[in-house]
Amino acid sequence: MVERLSPEARKSALAELSGWSELSGREAIQRTFTFKDFNEAFGFMSRAALVAEKNDHHPEWKNVYRTVEVVLATHDAGGVTRRDIDLAKAMNAIARQLGVT
Amino acid sequence: MVERLSPEARKSALAELSGWSELSGREAIQRTFTFKDFNEAFGFMSRAALVAEKNDHHPEWKNVYRTVEVVLATHDAGGVTRRDIDLAKAMNAIARQLGVT
Repeated sequence: MVERLSPEARKSALAELSGWSELSGREAIQRTFTFKDFNEAFGFMSRAALVAEKNDHHPEWKNVYRTVEVVLATHDAGGVTRRDIDLAKAMNAIARQLGVT
Repeated sequence: MVERLSPEARKSALAELSGWSELSGREAIQRTFTFKDFNEAFGFMSRAALVAEKNDHHPEWKNVYRTVEVVLATHDAGGVTRRDIDLAKAMNAIARQLGVT
């Protein structure tokens, strides 16, 4: 079982994660990605979904046309773990390839 | 430009749309789909995304593991139009093929 990060570890991981921040009112991290259009937004989601499924660790996300709001937390651990940080990094890498930094 | 449905027309369209209801506080329709797992939920989203893109009419949707909450409205028309009803029907047909009625 993967361990919940301490507030300090969470903060230090977030400092290296462009665009991500703490979600207020809940132990989770969030980022809103804004793409050029729906094609790019859903392309991002499709690639991220494959990563999520492969690692059996899934996002909560909302898509409205060209935006994708993502919330990551590890339910079993009751907070943010290394698995969330890894998925956030993978999402940033995919977005970067679509020109979103 | 596609016309906003009257409350009566909306109600009568909804009566034929299994699982859909009016969204409270906003002129829109909603349905929450619950699939077997993330694979099926995202498979549903992928097929629905292709329909949405083809018709240039996109949903607002949120996915958490095996659930997909969908809200449909036509921004330009300030309410629900035939385009929303058509997309809702298409989504129901896709879900039905995945065993969700």
